[in-house]
Amino acid sequence: MAVYTDVSDEELQAFAAQYDLGAVVSCKGIAEGVENTNYLLQTLPEGAEGPDNYILTLYEKRVRPADLPFFLGLMEHLAANGISCPTPIHGRDGVALRQLCGKPAVIVSFLSGMWPKRPTAQQCGALGTALAKMHIAGADFEMSRANNMAFDGWQILLDASRERAGEILPGLAETLTEELTYLEANWPQDLPTGVIHADLFPDNVFFLGDNLSGLIDFYFACNDFLAYDLAICLNAWCFESDGSFNITKTRALLRRYAEVRPLNAAEFAALPLLARGSALRFLLTRLYDKLNHDEEALVRPKDPLEFLARLRFHQTVDGPGAYGLDETLAGA
Amino acid sequence: MAVYTDVSDEELQAFAAQYDLGAVVSCKGIAEGVENTNYLLQTLPEGAEGPDNYILTLYEKRVRPADLPFFLGLMEHLAANGISCPTPIHGRDGVALRQLCGKPAVIVSFLSGMWPKRPTAQQCGALGTALAKMHIAGADFEMSRANNMAFDGWQILLDASRERAGEILPGLAETLTEELTYLEANWPQDLPTGVIHADLFPDNVFFLGDNLSGLIDFYFACNDFLAYDLAICLNAWCFESDGSFNITKTRALLRRYAEVRPLNAAEFAALPLLARGSALRFLLTRLYDKLNHDEEALVRPKDPLEFLARLRFHQTVDGPGAYGLDETLAGA
Repeated sequence: MAVYTDVSDEELQAFAAQYDLGAVVSCKGIAEGVENTNYLLQTLPEGAEGPDNYILTLYEKRVRPADLPFFLGLMEHLAANGISCPTPIHGRDGVALRQLCGKPAVIVSFLSGMWPKRPTAQQCGALGTALAKMHIAGADFEMSRANNMAFDGWQILLDASRERAGEILPGLAETLTEELTYLEANWPQDLPTGVIHADLFPDNVFFLGDNLSGLIDFYFACNDFLAYDLAICLNAWCFESDGSFNITKTRALLRRYAEVRPLNAAEFAALPLLARGSALRFLLTRLYDKLNHDEEALVRPKDPLEFLARLRFHQTVDGPGAYGLDETLAGA
Repeated sequence: MAVYTDVSDEELQAFAAQYDLGAVVSCKGIAEGVENTNYLLQTLPEGAEGPDNYILTLYEKRVRPADLPFFLGLMEHLAANGISCPTPIHGRDGVALRQLCGKPAVIVSFLSGMWPKRPTAQQCGALGTALAKMHIAGADFEMSRANNMAFDGWQILLDASRERAGEILPGLAETLTEELTYLEANWPQDLPTGVIHADLFPDNVFFLGDNLSGLIDFYFACNDFLAYDLAICLNAWCFESDGSFNITKTRALLRRYAEVRPLNAAEFAALPLLARGSALRFLLTRLYDKLNHDEEALVRPKDPLEFLARLRFHQTVDGPGAYGLDETLAGA
């Protein structure tokens, strides 16, 4: 929750003048999103009764500028293929990505809806449907981007945190090293790949009641196993705040996903492993962020140990059936 | 810039259901405001084409619940008397102030406009006009509230910071003690009083271009010398980021104020002293906030020494003429 870059009126007016959106009548920093600076921008086209809403995003250092054409191109591609997500707005010169206050910046369409603080099983089901549709819509997107949050990235994060991981929990470095070794030796090879969101936590999914109204924040999107995206959602949506596993939510997520995009036998079998990998991934980034937290930062680091608990759960399940989906329903 | 209270969907829906505003379609935490939690709330009344905008405010611990009827009543009174400011929205039961997540909360009307990061002289002039109109509109408001940021408050803040003030600047405690003693001995007695905003910094004033579109954040409003409010604006608007005094902006502010509400001779003469008092007031609160800054807090403390520089400037002026307004134009 932070605004990292203050945009002066003059800079904002000059920026907005490059678009056919009308006069800027409001621009408020949004307290959500930890990676970029987001403003809710309101413009009043000539003759319009009320203002139009947009999101103005300034990309801060954590997003590599070289990746932006992939992210923005993906959002345009998905939106053109029926997925409700922010769409980059083009200026009169046809350009969507430009500079503001020395940073890459875009205006994207505004999505109604709110992210669920406590997702319901019905919302988990709606997420499953939307995720599968997104995977299908992404199939013919022509650009690609490697997942830098895969093994190499995990290894780098673990190395960077190893010496001080014990400050968070004694023995944590050893646990993580062991898990990483196990996953490297056992990670599946031939699962269907495609464009994945890779960070579809509840704060990136908007709902109007139980109806999913849109997906946002594609800034970790990359090419990887499609079922890994599902495993990320499982970790992000199907555990309660006390750490307990919710089988009803998991079943709803997986079942509704598989109704749209059936899992093959290898994907179904790999679910526990993919869930372990995804738990490890978020554990490692949260651990790193916690150990390297800037006291002056406006963002509170999230608790890495929430994902240690999830990892331990997935280590002990006795097969993919533990997630509430049987092989027939999965399509496997 | 902070959201202190996360509102769950269920709580938000139940809260909004008490109003005739339509369905909630968006609710985003705003990264501005250091005292309260503010959400930009969008609702869609039945049959409407686009959403309506409101601000949902949850009052955090720094606002005393007992003061809320004064603040909200003042906003209603000013709005009813032609001042553009947020107006509390009443529920179907007629009530504006209720509880949300265990905190006092209101929905207020949304104001278009943006606060100026670098105010222009023209904007300072527009502020002068608006401030004078606000003082006149407030004259027949029937409630009153003492200024707890006056001498007693200053003394308490100074006592609380005295021992550690030297950490910020050696000798600071002595400087402040001396100034407080001087001000107590010389503070004016019989200036016109009324309801003042008491915190009209640029982030509390919205503009559309050079046109002032509204005043917000009345949570320091109280009864005090009207000219003291003007002195607060002088400190808040008429110094550049490098600390230098801008006589053009000051003249615009004072002159446009006096065109609407002429200053009497005593007010005019008291300007340097009122400016010193107002500089001391913000110096003391910033000093306290800096010394007592919670490392975990999401708000960066502001620099108290900016106001020491202003204080020193006002200590050395050779009379009210230094602010660019002559006695005739002041109306004195």
